Amino acid sequence: MTDWGDIARERLEIISMASEAGPGVTRLPFSEQHEAAIGFITSWMTAAGCQVHLDAAGTLVGRRAGPEGAGTLLIGSHQDSVRQGGFFDGIMGVALGCLALEKLAQAGVKLPFAVEILAFADEEGVRFATALMGPRALAGTLDPAVFAMKDDTGKTLSEALARIGGNSEAALQLSRDSKDILGFLEVHIEQGPVLEALDTPLGVVTAISGIERHCVQILGETGHAGTVPMTLRKDALRAGAKLVEAVHDLALRHDLRATVGALTLSPNVVNAIPAQVDLTVEIRAPDDAAREAAGVELAKICAQIAGETGTKIEPSRSYAQPAVACDPKMRALLVDAVMQVSGQAPELPSGATHDASAMADLCPVAMLFVRCRGGISHSPAEYASNADMGAAVEALAFALMAYANASEGAPVHA
Amino acid sequence: MTDWGDIARERLEIISMASEAGPGVTRLPFSEQHEAAIGFITSWMTAAGCQVHLDAAGTLVGRRAGPEGAGTLLIGSHQDSVRQGGFFDGIMGVALGCLALEKLAQAGVKLPFAVEILAFADEEGVRFATALMGPRALAGTLDPAVFAMKDDTGKTLSEALARIGGNSEAALQLSRDSKDILGFLEVHIEQGPVLEALDTPLGVVTAISGIERHCVQILGETGHAGTVPMTLRKDALRAGAKLVEAVHDLALRHDLRATVGALTLSPNVVNAIPAQVDLTVEIRAPDDAAREAAGVELAKICAQIAGETGTKIEPSRSYAQPAVACDPKMRALLVDAVMQVSGQAPELPSGATHDASAMADLCPVAMLFVRCRGGISHSPAEYASNADMGAAVEALAFALMAYANASEGAPVHA
Repeated sequence: MTDWGDIARERLEIISMASEAGPGVTRLPFSEQHEAAIGFITSWMTAAGCQVHLDAAGTLVGRRAGPEGAGTLLIGSHQDSVRQGGFFDGIMGVALGCLALEKLAQAGVKLPFAVEILAFADEEGVRFATALMGPRALAGTLDPAVFAMKDDTGKTLSEALARIGGNSEAALQLSRDSKDILGFLEVHIEQGPVLEALDTPLGVVTAISGIERHCVQILGETGHAGTVPMTLRKDALRAGAKLVEAVHDLALRHDLRATVGALTLSPNVVNAIPAQVDLTVEIRAPDDAAREAAGVELAKICAQIAGETGTKIEPSRSYAQPAVACDPKMRALLVDAVMQVSGQAPELPSGATHDASAMADLCPVAMLFVRCRGGISHSPAEYASNADMGAAVEALAFALMAYANASEGAPVHA
Repeated sequence: MTDWGDIARERLEIISMASEAGPGVTRLPFSEQHEAAIGFITSWMTAAGCQVHLDAAGTLVGRRAGPEGAGTLLIGSHQDSVRQGGFFDGIMGVALGCLALEKLAQAGVKLPFAVEILAFADEEGVRFATALMGPRALAGTLDPAVFAMKDDTGKTLSEALARIGGNSEAALQLSRDSKDILGFLEVHIEQGPVLEALDTPLGVVTAISGIERHCVQILGETGHAGTVPMTLRKDALRAGAKLVEAVHDLALRHDLRATVGALTLSPNVVNAIPAQVDLTVEIRAPDDAAREAAGVELAKICAQIAGETGTKIEPSRSYAQPAVACDPKMRALLVDAVMQVSGQAPELPSGATHDASAMADLCPVAMLFVRCRGGISHSPAEYASNADMGAAVEALAFALMAYANASEGAPVHA
């Protein structure tokens, strides 16, 4: 019997060589390494019975046709990595999609719809200050302004895209007719420790969390660390410390994630009371109302701590991105499939953004998470086991068959 | 009647022009600005009836002789400033010492001992990574190794000293015989807000606080701010925040000063859980046993917070300097004098180090603090009022007369 997990591992090891030098994988979009990856992925898609082409936005598309007039189910993820990232983030979803299709083909299954495997160029946003160009092009939400963005070397996104055979003007014409598209399925490593803690290989995503970010400036008063009595201090770092604790409590109380990730202080010397602290608060939740409520409470907490510490605290929301709910029907199919494979099918939100976030503007989306060791990603230490990847191939194949059974009456091309 | 506070202000304004360009006063030791200051201070000393010379360590010495065989009382502070410092720190003590002597001379008072006004070259330690060369030379505690230290331009301390007429070899021969020296009196701005809070111009120092510094490294685990549940985090910044609060509580409980002044974190980005925090804890107390007890407790607090937060916390003491007690007899004379001038004479520790710290190795020391606005120093906003400086001149003159009355039987030269 074919061991799909072992094949996945072998393919991911080989494609990991399409990387800049250094630890882990560094594969930026529209680079030589991307071009090399396109060659490997083409062979995976071909083995799955697909016709392969690169679209104008740099997305490698492997299409396996369905019956005349049937709709198309999309499966995919991204080919690119962060700098010195891991073997699995993004590219594993492309590899496992191909293998699920190959497994069905090997079993002689014919699906009553077309399937396209998509390997998007850029989800991480490392090279240019934008990301998700591929899915946005398909959804018709691509902002033409991004093509003028420049990378570190001064090359525009438009030029970089052209280098691998894309075309910025044509990319703006790629939007699909949502009537033709049945949905988008994405397999991805969890990038968190929940499945590991539950001791189970696979999980089904309920929603991709919305995000808001706040910049908080705390103004106290500096002074000599030896001369100013404790009770007369207006220590900006002490106010910051209270805020860090309050943000943690806020997250627990609202059942969401809240993080103080960045903090700087001034004057930042051993013998002076800190005068100023600048910190960031990021709140993520699958439910937008809960997230917004937490954001409103944050402002109240800042005012309270300012009063307690004699400081001035000014929070300002710098970014907000709504949550994306996964499609209930596709979720249910994935839950059934995962249950068959591993006996339990935990459902969990995705705290990270994915290609599915942008694809949700085009069609229903659903995501399958694969357990990763220690919850670690964006690191050479990122790891998913062969057995878990094999389970994901099996679950995806089950889900596709279940989708085929359920799709009598599913939208077909008029 | 002469207004000694107005004269002090006028002199400090004039000498403030002996400064590098920019806001506030920047007068580094052995510089052109130092040379210009030597000219101004020489005129102050001369007006007070002193014979003036520059000693080999760059200290300007104004001596008013006493009766044959009598001992010498030293009064002084430092001429140098931090970069962009204020009008008062250091130099005010030199100016007020000269004026007190001038006031007594004007009143026809003859003291039964010699007085020397000392204007030390370098207390702040801004130019070279050492300080207090002048008092250490007199106390015989000067380390010859410091002369090889280089400033930013590569010039050694020895060369810099020679430039203004000092000599490093001769500086090592300056140590005084403690039998000849009655004591050292220093007038200085408080550099803290205590006198202002008590609404009184002058205070008497009980001791110069000892100092210990700890570097604390906190190791947690990074992770995606969206994916790692709050309860599974090992957030180094949360541990750091708890430590900041605990250090504040420690200070209140032990009645001393404790400060987290510097803190850096890594990776320090909005969407990642902090993996590592490095911070400093500085503890200052007039009582060494209390300070050491707080330092020992700090290590226990670190262990407790590590346990609570799943982090590893390693504190290490990087520096320790014992406290210097002021001489009880000289303190009592200052208290009486201050009481006469301002009706109350609060006693308080000095949280900052001063020239008196090093002079304590030679002779009894005492310090008079002058209220400064907002507790602010090391800043162009540093301010002491004319009236308060006038009060300090008066108190110093009273103290000198009281010392004269009390010094029958005081040590005289054999």
